[in-house]
Amino acid sequence: MQVIDSIGAWRKALDGERADGRHVALVPTMGALHAGHAALIERAAATGAVVGVSVFVNPLQFGDRADLDAYPRTLEADVEVAAAHGADYVFAPSAAEMYPRPMATVVAVPALAARWEGEDRPGHFDGVATVVTKLFAQAGPCRAYFGAKDYQQLCIVRRLAADLDLGVDVVGCPTVREADGLALSSRNVRLTPAERRAAPVLRRALDAGAEALTVGATPAAARLAMHATVAAEPLVALHYAEPVDAETLEPLEDALAPGAGARLLIAAQLGATRLIDNLGVTR
Amino acid sequence: MQVIDSIGAWRKALDGERADGRHVALVPTMGALHAGHAALIERAAATGAVVGVSVFVNPLQFGDRADLDAYPRTLEADVEVAAAHGADYVFAPSAAEMYPRPMATVVAVPALAARWEGEDRPGHFDGVATVVTKLFAQAGPCRAYFGAKDYQQLCIVRRLAADLDLGVDVVGCPTVREADGLALSSRNVRLTPAERRAAPVLRRALDAGAEALTVGATPAAARLAMHATVAAEPLVALHYAEPVDAETLEPLEDALAPGAGARLLIAAQLGATRLIDNLGVTR
Repeated sequence: MQVIDSIGAWRKALDGERADGRHVALVPTMGALHAGHAALIERAAATGAVVGVSVFVNPLQFGDRADLDAYPRTLEADVEVAAAHGADYVFAPSAAEMYPRPMATVVAVPALAARWEGEDRPGHFDGVATVVTKLFAQAGPCRAYFGAKDYQQLCIVRRLAADLDLGVDVVGCPTVREADGLALSSRNVRLTPAERRAAPVLRRALDAGAEALTVGATPAAARLAMHATVAAEPLVALHYAEPVDAETLEPLEDALAPGAGARLLIAAQLGATRLIDNLGVTR
Repeated sequence: MQVIDSIGAWRKALDGERADGRHVALVPTMGALHAGHAALIERAAATGAVVGVSVFVNPLQFGDRADLDAYPRTLEADVEVAAAHGADYVFAPSAAEMYPRPMATVVAVPALAARWEGEDRPGHFDGVATVVTKLFAQAGPCRAYFGAKDYQQLCIVRRLAADLDLGVDVVGCPTVREADGLALSSRNVRLTPAERRAAPVLRRALDAGAEALTVGATPAAARLAMHATVAAEPLVALHYAEPVDAETLEPLEDALAPGAGARLLIAAQLGATRLIDNLGVTR
């Protein structure tokens, strides 16, 4: 496996692979790779494509300098995880390589970014959309694998790739969970033992909301079921819990018709740590 | 010469050319090709690259539906001009091909787009930046030729291509002018005979401003010289006339040091027609 840190060498390597007739699979990450990332890499590798994992902690998507500085950086371990799960390349540029001058250009998907995580983290999704556009443009035509755990991000990335004709096919992959239902996240290590024990309530709340929608309850009833579930955990403060349209992310207005689907989104605070999760539901 | 109207066929044609070892040159236009466009095509062809001319009247960059509808569409003539000056392909997609669904994604370069044309035409440069990003992503690695006549647009396009790592080398080409100094523009045909006679005052004003900066006058004095020149033409109402930094487009603050350079921008209204022009100056 090869580790590359310059954009020029990265482009050349992937162009070379395509010239040899191979397909390219890209797994964009911010490092701190866990079993969720490993599953993305394995799924990409299973297609027979040449797999490139990018590792870049993107300053543009952090509102807060302290949060950026505190984000785990574990490149050596990440390289091992990537190699063990079938990656052919790790692309790990420095911030100076990615942003040699202050960025004047912004890519935004305002209709999908305004609500939910975007409302609580202004500018976050503009930073995500901008760096993903760069990563896609650098990598060239490929399939790109994203976890469904960051569902709003997945919707935004899928939309910008299609809207801008970037030649990238965005593949959403199922959330990987601990045995007790907690979605894997690089942030989970920050939880205290008590918070960690409380955290699976997010998944239980999603299940309660899904159950309600599945039997034909209104979105308001599903929301109430989620709120009630979380309210039973004093360590967990809800940011939002909402049934939404799976594509537009607008709040669901009506009970699901038989055969129709939706997405449930949830975000909550556990001490200093913000956790998010989501679940698809079809009636 | 081949005329293509689907993005898929366009991508495939240019990928094929690159696979055969040729370089690709892109000349993005809104059609109504005149001698200014012809010069871009010739310059691109002179490099030995395969030359693709895109013809697309981009709805996103028109604030006004009537202005969009009134914009000249002359594809048959454009194809002839392109072929006569050395183009290998004309890419002329429909609006439905370019925007199969409403665009949710916006590309913006706010620091360069806020002033001058952007101030008078809100949203215009977001529309330009978004469609150019699409055109670049569709075409793949290439050199792209733009006229310096739309200088602010040239700066924005150059910046977004670099910021987003689009693999496109943006080449700015000198403004082509009529014998009396009027910059070629698709809008010139809308001038009445009297307005057409008055129009070269824009170039004379730029010359007056350049003369002032060249001898070490302040930016305020250069601006005054431009205003005074235009004031002598009753048919011409000035929008702005400004010495600016050639890269940031910020108003110039100090007189030019020997060897230093700047750009002069001008925009004026002649009846129903808005004209713009600009000039580089080095002391």
